[in-house]
Amino acid sequence: MKALVYHGPGKRSWENVPDPDLIDTTDAIVRVDAVTICGTDLHILGGDVPEVTEGRILGHEAVGTIVEAGAAVTGVHIGDRVLISCISSCARCAYCRAGRYGQCLGGGGWILGHLIDGTQAEYVRVPFADTSTYKLPEAVSDEAALLLADILPTSYEVGVLNGAVRPGDSVAVVGTGPIGLAAIATAKLLSPSQIIAIDKAPARLQAAKDFGADLTLEPGDACAEQVIAATDALGADVVIEAVGTPATFELCTRLVRPGGHVANVGVHGAPATLHLESLWIKDVTITTGLVDTSSTPTLLRMLAAGQFDAGAFITHRFGLDEMREAYDVFSRPADTGALKVALLRH
Amino acid sequence: MKALVYHGPGKRSWENVPDPDLIDTTDAIVRVDAVTICGTDLHILGGDVPEVTEGRILGHEAVGTIVEAGAAVTGVHIGDRVLISCISSCARCAYCRAGRYGQCLGGGGWILGHLIDGTQAEYVRVPFADTSTYKLPEAVSDEAALLLADILPTSYEVGVLNGAVRPGDSVAVVGTGPIGLAAIATAKLLSPSQIIAIDKAPARLQAAKDFGADLTLEPGDACAEQVIAATDALGADVVIEAVGTPATFELCTRLVRPGGHVANVGVHGAPATLHLESLWIKDVTITTGLVDTSSTPTLLRMLAAGQFDAGAFITHRFGLDEMREAYDVFSRPADTGALKVALLRH
Amino acid sequence: MKALVYHGPGKRSWENVPDPDLIDTTDAIVRVDAVTICGTDLHILGGDVPEVTEGRILGHEAVGTIVEAGAAVTGVHIGDRVLISCISSCARCAYCRAGRYGQCLGGGGWILGHLIDGTQAEYVRVPFADTSTYKLPEAVSDEAALLLADILPTSYEVGVLNGAVRPGDSVAVVGTGPIGLAAIATAKLLSPSQIIAIDKAPARLQAAKDFGADLTLEPGDACAEQVIAATDALGADVVIEAVGTPATFELCTRLVRPGGHVANVGVHGAPATLHLESLWIKDVTITTGLVDTSSTPTLLRMLAAGQFDAGAFITHRFGLDEMREAYDVFSRPADTGALKVALLRH
Amino acid sequence: MKALVYHGPGKRSWENVPDPDLIDTTDAIVRVDAVTICGTDLHILGGDVPEVTEGRILGHEAVGTIVEAGAAVTGVHIGDRVLISCISSCARCAYCRAGRYGQCLGGGGWILGHLIDGTQAEYVRVPFADTSTYKLPEAVSDEAALLLADILPTSYEVGVLNGAVRPGDSVAVVGTGPIGLAAIATAKLLSPSQIIAIDKAPARLQAAKDFGADLTLEPGDACAEQVIAATDALGADVVIEAVGTPATFELCTRLVRPGGHVANVGVHGAPATLHLESLWIKDVTITTGLVDTSSTPTLLRMLAAGQFDAGAFITHRFGLDEMREAYDVFSRPADTGALKVALLRH
Repeated sequence: MKALVYHGPGKRSWENVPDPDLIDTTDAIVRVDAVTICGTDLHILGGDVPEVTEGRILGHEAVGTIVEAGAAVTGVHIGDRVLISCISSCARCAYCRAGRYGQCLGGGGWILGHLIDGTQAEYVRVPFADTSTYKLPEAVSDEAALLLADILPTSYEVGVLNGAVRPGDSVAVVGTGPIGLAAIATAKLLSPSQIIAIDKAPARLQAAKDFGADLTLEPGDACAEQVIAATDALGADVVIEAVGTPATFELCTRLVRPGGHVANVGVHGAPATLHLESLWIKDVTITTGLVDTSSTPTLLRMLAAGQFDAGAFITHRFGLDEMREAYDVFSRPADTGALKVALLRH
Repeated sequence: MKALVYHGPGKRSWENVPDPDLIDTTDAIVRVDAVTICGTDLHILGGDVPEVTEGRILGHEAVGTIVEAGAAVTGVHIGDRVLISCISSCARCAYCRAGRYGQCLGGGGWILGHLIDGTQAEYVRVPFADTSTYKLPEAVSDEAALLLADILPTSYEVGVLNGAVRPGDSVAVVGTGPIGLAAIATAKLLSPSQIIAIDKAPARLQAAKDFGADLTLEPGDACAEQVIAATDALGADVVIEAVGTPATFELCTRLVRPGGHVANVGVHGAPATLHLESLWIKDVTITTGLVDTSSTPTLLRMLAAGQFDAGAFITHRFGLDEMREAYDVFSRPADTGALKVALLRH
Repeated sequence: MKALVYHGPGKRSWENVPDPDLIDTTDAIVRVDAVTICGTDLHILGGDVPEVTEGRILGHEAVGTIVEAGAAVTGVHIGDRVLISCISSCARCAYCRAGRYGQCLGGGGWILGHLIDGTQAEYVRVPFADTSTYKLPEAVSDEAALLLADILPTSYEVGVLNGAVRPGDSVAVVGTGPIGLAAIATAKLLSPSQIIAIDKAPARLQAAKDFGADLTLEPGDACAEQVIAATDALGADVVIEAVGTPATFELCTRLVRPGGHVANVGVHGAPATLHLESLWIKDVTITTGLVDTSSTPTLLRMLAAGQFDAGAFITHRFGLDEMREAYDVFSRPADTGALKVALLRH
Repeated sequence: MKALVYHGPGKRSWENVPDPDLIDTTDAIVRVDAVTICGTDLHILGGDVPEVTEGRILGHEAVGTIVEAGAAVTGVHIGDRVLISCISSCARCAYCRAGRYGQCLGGGGWILGHLIDGTQAEYVRVPFADTSTYKLPEAVSDEAALLLADILPTSYEVGVLNGAVRPGDSVAVVGTGPIGLAAIATAKLLSPSQIIAIDKAPARLQAAKDFGADLTLEPGDACAEQVIAATDALGADVVIEAVGTPATFELCTRLVRPGGHVANVGVHGAPATLHLESLWIKDVTITTGLVDTSSTPTLLRMLAAGQFDAGAFITHRFGLDEMREAYDVFSRPADTGALKVALLRH
């Protein structure tokens, strides 16, 4: 089959590789019908995720059809159209039983396209298939379902739920790439009174407005003052970090009101400074997290009920064998305006 | 009257000052029957709290008797024996109505011995007397009640409740001065399976054992490994910071398990490094906070029911006019073994 | 002044009475600019609320202007346009400090138009004015603000928050009079995937659809089966009782799924049967409650931000001196289509 | 093998039956090393649980040794000493993934000794062995572990956690048989200030005192008044129903304070009257529930840490083949003083 193979920092190719085989009785082999590319894949190609070794097939988001299933797989069957989650769950360890699949101690967690071969391929082996795939209702298109593989549960669980957004809140989102936009879309499920979006790129601030931000700001010196001014001189109830740099994280801790929440979603490669000399007295709650995808069934129900406009996220569509072009478009968002790209099997 | 007056960094004296008068109709004048000294008072004398101006009477913890009350005071009366809380509450602002008295926007919060004259005096003016003092039942001695002015609610609310301690948890407490010991005592209310105490001073580790710590460790290089080893190779469910330095805070973030809580109680004067490059994926919750004293009525009920051994905290007793000696003993705990000192009117 | 006076079951008149005077220093006298009638007022006139004695001025919802304030009132001032809440709060008792103003032990709770004279008058004395009135921003009209006096906080707190509605839930609302419709409107703040409205009156089911119900049913035998069928064969996540009869309450307990919530909002005059022989094993949570109005500041912020369509509730408008006509229209909703009526001072 | 077989109401015998075989690949066969009898078994024998058909082996609590395991069982192995939980969990359905194993939709829930053959036998087939048995540490004896099969998780989850017991609370427990006593023992994990035990039998009230009740009362007319008098004239914060009759449930709703919780643990065979005419305004939360055993790992850790006195529960010990004598003693507690009986393989 064809697959996108990582060959070390900066090197990838769409090439012929052997088809995957079942290894454990809880595995399934899934034919990939739709797949997308994540900002994290670019981080891997940048060499920032050293656990990814050369020869690894990338990708952790897909929709597909079960073509083979191990003897112990009972919940999904050959022919089922399923969502492949970015997080695999053994369903038995203490973390999985507590709903924290991202921290799975039994061999799951984020493994696809990371520790084992991933979804940017014609076929993929999915471990723990019963508890790591989700049967899709007809009402949900492949393209819409792609958003549930990572971007929507990540922004909802790690941003909105960890941040404890409540009706009437002021919510600031720092960084309005795809994850930040998904944070805006999922924050709106809780009816905040005001969403403030902060980004350097004017095009992304425009996208934030289109997704429902009430106020858009650039992250310069004036930004903190403007947020304070817009929030009864107190700061935002909830601040969501969706970039992953020390500067953006530190900005978040300046924007939050006493008693408020800073929910970090960004993937960080360097430490940040935590200004405890001012924060110790301020009653703030700071959370970090890898997505668990425990919200996936709920988000799927909402998607089927028409509660999300999936089309707003997918800016470009390709055939599965146009993987190279898709990477090219996705990696130059300033030029291409790309949010999420969809690669579809024909 | 006599009072302990701050005259700039390093300078204090027990001297004659005018008696306090009522200013607002919600004020009460309280005769101080018992008072104590807080580590924060030493910070003020060290010059670390610049808002405290020269001439200020220090102290924010006391038990006393109401001798005068403003026209709008209706809940406490002349002659009532009351606890004076370290936190004053206007009871009307958004923060007070949400139980966050420490963040009071209406003129309360931590004001005694900070922004207005405090309790280390023969008499003190207490603003918002109805909602900033607590009538004491006979079953609770002055000395025991002193612990409710600051140390017990602080460790319980900012350490134990913010840290979300649950039965069966592993709890690590970094720093076992009076606040750390109070964190051990109040954590035990939730029946953790294991309390690990960490401090440099062997005498304090012994005190931690006496208060119920199961394991005591020094904060050297081996400490994190020992905590991991003692907690199923995962780390502690809850880590309470009770020192207030960058090093101790950073240690806390190494001791916590995925999905766990770091509850900062320490007063910090400098920023810490937050290792987001490893923490972003770890599902940690970090909280900071000034005490609200919203738990004071509950703690008072528990104290009356005999659920705390107040005597374990008070190591030295003085007359009120021995303020100088009391400060001397309290400021040299390594030599004197002082935890809390009580100064009692005769 | 003129006021609507209760003269025993079935008897009321709009008559001359003395103007109210300040009694306590925390009182304010408010000129009534807009007032409405509550279903509870009809219950009182029906003789169902025996604590209401003859001679009492009815009404517990209004918007007005402060014309006199006691010496201890500091948060609102003469000339301020304020919302008068149906719940008064002493702000000092244990229940008020816990945000449960409806259970106030200090003389507040539901007193207006119940234990003391109410708002259906030209002027009204409001106890605890600082913590029982809310200053209105200009952006909120008198008419819109009327909804915050009772109907929106009641349905939101006692129905939606007690019921713990979450995004993606199925919510059933039994009874779609004004409170049931407000429950639909406020449930939508949490983005349920499906709202099922149940009522006997076709006109009210049509109103429910207009307010956003996805499915409308009559409460006959088939109703429970239809709800089960519409909710994955399990039942609704949250069921809100907004009628107040044994039959409707018992229906609610049949509609709820294992692990779900039944939130009672209805005012009951008779006991209901609780089928513990089937419910004991079903993990249900049943809540009751009087509104606290602790959500009023948040709802006010949402109203100012345009998050509610206040106009959808007010079906009829009158002058303040048309009180008799307003009662007549409001008490015959089947004929008049009345939801809420607004009486406005000219 | 020998097993205790149900032959219709009132009829049971300890007789020869075929050994159990593996059916599904997720099954294990466990040799029973220790087993106990539950009050529910007496209900079954009384004919109250019609789903239990003639020929069924009873019992849903045991400790044993794995002797055979299906191909898909990977978490426990032949020779492992395990706790057999009263609740089986498929680990895949929506309820299991939410931690509500008692409501399992995938074939689990309470099935042992109910819908399939149970543990009062020399061997038992346990479905979903990976997620329905718990490997026991050496520090925990068979006898102590027996308490984790049902009685401790039931009282802790359905009574104490559903009732939301907090430090400083007043807790009333109605019914002090084994489950009520376990509710007292597990409520103490949260450090209530006062536990009030209510029962008709003086011997059980004495047992309640031994387990830590502060006040013991008989359920006559005076009981509600005495509880109110002992709780600041308000009622208990939490009331736990541990009997299962209409009268005891209705008593619970009279004992609870405004804002408090009634947690039903009792197994009911008849409806109760819910006095909504007084409760609608009282802000009460009433919960029901079947145990999930989601707390079992935590309780096991606490048992290993010595946080429970298991010996206080087991009043009688028998050999496994003395099943008849054990049933006789357990079914006459008034005469025998039996709480829990342990039957041990020799």
